[in-house]
Amino acid sequence: MPVPTIDRRALLGSASLALVGTGSAIQPAQAAPEPKGEARAEPKAVPPEVTRILARYIVGARYADLPEAVRREGTRTVLNWVGVAIGGSHHETLDVAVSALKPFSGPPQAGLFGRPERFDIMNAAFLNGVASHIFDYDDTHLKTVIHPAGPVASAILAYAEMHPVSGADFLNALVLGVETECRIGNAVYPNHYDVGWHITGTAGVFGAAAATGKLMGLSEQQMVWALGLAASQPVGLRESFGSMNKSFNPGRAASNGLFAAILASKNYTSSDGMIEAKRGWANTISTKQDYREITEGLGTRYEAALNTYKPFACGIVMHPAIDAAVQLRNENHLVPDAIERVDMKVHPLVLELTGKTAPRTGLEGKFSITHAVAVALVEGAGGERQFSDRAVNDPVIVALRARVKPVVDPAIRPEQVELTVVLKDGRSLPRRIEHAIGSVERPMSDAALETKFTDLAEGILPDDQVRRVMGLCWRIAELADAGEVARAGVQA
Amino acid sequence: MPVPTIDRRALLGSASLALVGTGSAIQPAQAAPEPKGEARAEPKAVPPEVTRILARYIVGARYADLPEAVRREGTRTVLNWVGVAIGGSHHETLDVAVSALKPFSGPPQAGLFGRPERFDIMNAAFLNGVASHIFDYDDTHLKTVIHPAGPVASAILAYAEMHPVSGADFLNALVLGVETECRIGNAVYPNHYDVGWHITGTAGVFGAAAATGKLMGLSEQQMVWALGLAASQPVGLRESFGSMNKSFNPGRAASNGLFAAILASKNYTSSDGMIEAKRGWANTISTKQDYREITEGLGTRYEAALNTYKPFACGIVMHPAIDAAVQLRNENHLVPDAIERVDMKVHPLVLELTGKTAPRTGLEGKFSITHAVAVALVEGAGGERQFSDRAVNDPVIVALRARVKPVVDPAIRPEQVELTVVLKDGRSLPRRIEHAIGSVERPMSDAALETKFTDLAEGILPDDQVRRVMGLCWRIAELADAGEVARAGVQA
Repeated sequence: MPVPTIDRRALLGSASLALVGTGSAIQPAQAAPEPKGEARAEPKAVPPEVTRILARYIVGARYADLPEAVRREGTRTVLNWVGVAIGGSHHETLDVAVSALKPFSGPPQAGLFGRPERFDIMNAAFLNGVASHIFDYDDTHLKTVIHPAGPVASAILAYAEMHPVSGADFLNALVLGVETECRIGNAVYPNHYDVGWHITGTAGVFGAAAATGKLMGLSEQQMVWALGLAASQPVGLRESFGSMNKSFNPGRAASNGLFAAILASKNYTSSDGMIEAKRGWANTISTKQDYREITEGLGTRYEAALNTYKPFACGIVMHPAIDAAVQLRNENHLVPDAIERVDMKVHPLVLELTGKTAPRTGLEGKFSITHAVAVALVEGAGGERQFSDRAVNDPVIVALRARVKPVVDPAIRPEQVELTVVLKDGRSLPRRIEHAIGSVERPMSDAALETKFTDLAEGILPDDQVRRVMGLCWRIAELADAGEVARAGVQA
Repeated sequence: MPVPTIDRRALLGSASLALVGTGSAIQPAQAAPEPKGEARAEPKAVPPEVTRILARYIVGARYADLPEAVRREGTRTVLNWVGVAIGGSHHETLDVAVSALKPFSGPPQAGLFGRPERFDIMNAAFLNGVASHIFDYDDTHLKTVIHPAGPVASAILAYAEMHPVSGADFLNALVLGVETECRIGNAVYPNHYDVGWHITGTAGVFGAAAATGKLMGLSEQQMVWALGLAASQPVGLRESFGSMNKSFNPGRAASNGLFAAILASKNYTSSDGMIEAKRGWANTISTKQDYREITEGLGTRYEAALNTYKPFACGIVMHPAIDAAVQLRNENHLVPDAIERVDMKVHPLVLELTGKTAPRTGLEGKFSITHAVAVALVEGAGGERQFSDRAVNDPVIVALRARVKPVVDPAIRPEQVELTVVLKDGRSLPRRIEHAIGSVERPMSDAALETKFTDLAEGILPDDQVRRVMGLCWRIAELADAGEVARAGVQA
């Protein structure tokens, strides 16, 4: 599969690049200055009909209008998501969830990637959403750290198994769902994330509702209600990171969004301005609201074109450091015994999110920057095997990680790192990363995505089935029935 | 059924009466002063293991230890909840939800009050939870404006239909669920509610998880996880008030809490401190955290003993005014034409929540203090019939409501009102209410609860069935199988 060269930044307008300050966008020029010392300022003016503008766009947008580059990135999003969902399908997390929910499932309407069980579409959406995030290896919208596919693709593929839709309609719905969640995320990021919300679950539920509502053919008013019912069901807190609860969040966002759209499709009502009203979502859940991020440039700039895929099976904040470690190891043929210590300058978020110094399980290892660097230096990779129980308890890696010394440097941006391997022979090997592999600036190639997919599916599905599923993903836009992807990806 | 005289205030300890200021309770004396002007202060110290202390209490608490007054109030809570769930069972809101969810339901594990359909227990919990709040006529914990029964009773009764439990165990679980949600609500009220959350849905999900987890026999660690998964699924924004989305919230809190407990029962993990951790629920969702409200006096003071029931089918903030209007009408044999105008001094929340001046539907009438007072003066009641489409469009009531003049008075507490009917003959009839009928201080009698129940069930279930269901509710603690209440309350 050839890799088209796309300037994805060219698809952006100014609003998406300008992450403006706290909620001043929609306020009139004559607004009074912010009162000092208040826990939360009241909005100064009634914002435009944000929810309705968004709903109108979703209802009207057509596949034919999608730029080619957006279609391509949507296709890559599908492929990557199917791969990680298959990869997570036999993790203990999913075994537990499947056994817990089986007695309550409705008719066998939709399948699970990599498994034989079938569930009703809401439970299937939940379970595929959980599976796709278990390894923290799914796609990332870097501006918000939203993982877009989990909530959206899990919901629409389950729906598409029950109500067949064309691949073009499926891809259009996927893009619209990703637009919805990422634009809403932009409007409240970073304040909303900083305070403790897992933004993939809180914004993701809008994406799932928008995308499934699109496939259901909701009217504009029904879409307003679907978004309102989605606003009523945010999912996830950052405190849950490091437990099964983290992958719960995109899964529950998928099923909550689907639940919202199903109810709205029968005219279960909500209020009209649930995103922007005084006691609505954005004011309740965030101290920042930049509604222009939601309403401006609809149909001309695409957040969905900015989706990225992880070469490393962990949170995006650790990728620059792993990238630097792998580069230095491979270029210098490093062996652990030769390393005196590793000095690193990192963005504050790195230690806040991944500051565990003594991980005991593979899952905890994903929240340990010292483990990630140590294992990358020893094994030259950052895949799922490097975040296994085996890896975090390997004596060589354990010994090395104690010699990894991250320090916070306010001058370092989240996408950067300065890492120096100091050798016992006295040499220093510095490496500065501006953008890690897998970023918008240095995207994974189609071939690298295929390698990641086959690595994840190995041992779960036979090789020929894996190739068939990948082929269907690449051709998603041409399929008469998008549900074919789901059926092709289950375990016999 | 005789009405026992209970001093419910005597069940309270000091912590529940002292609604202390913003989150200072767990901070060490030597903590630095609050930084000025920050949107949200960081917690100064690690609080005690709030989630674990609560989980340990829930897991260990026995029916035998419940004071008699708490059992009695729990029984009244069940009776009132069953009545309002039957009453709402044929509203358009429930018709829509039932038809939307039917195609996705699992096995017919549990029934719906007042209806013939059966659903899996998660959908049944949702639907009974929605039904019980449709008329805004359910029980209220006045300190937090939480409606406790909807999330909790809907979840455990559905569960009890699938896994039979004794009435005593059911009542114990109900009380523990109500304790959990109301104590967590106390910890964050009023800030959490003020900013826009519908606290019944955000705190209620904990109650549903605690109560169903208790019936499932979760271990302490599993209960910690159930509370953590509940924390990840808050439901509801105040902006949705006046639409079907409002009754969605307690219903979804019920099914979300049940979902959390089911997963936790199979060892689906969460973090250990999801309520109190830095990036946990209370810090993320509120600017106030008073953890003593959760951890102090467990097993000695009972929020469940403070539950109240509405004599009027609308939000509690309007009750003092309706009470005053009904009293003045009945004492003075008022007729609409004799009334020049009605002057009222109300707490600010009254106009904030129920300030609609031109309601077009019965549902909107519940958010119109001017309608509520007008219809109470005309018809001498505030039941569901007074909040119908018919009532809000009655020309006599419409004309009178334009002459009802509420003004905000900061000296008036939420439970008070000063209402004066000015007659065309020049007379003024003032009435000050300190505590409305239905409050903790002036509770509805058992007989009044029965009248409310029979009014709600009229036309839905036959009279003899209504009497049988009420009898089962009064005897809930003696039943060998609590599910009998559910089976007795469905439509043949």
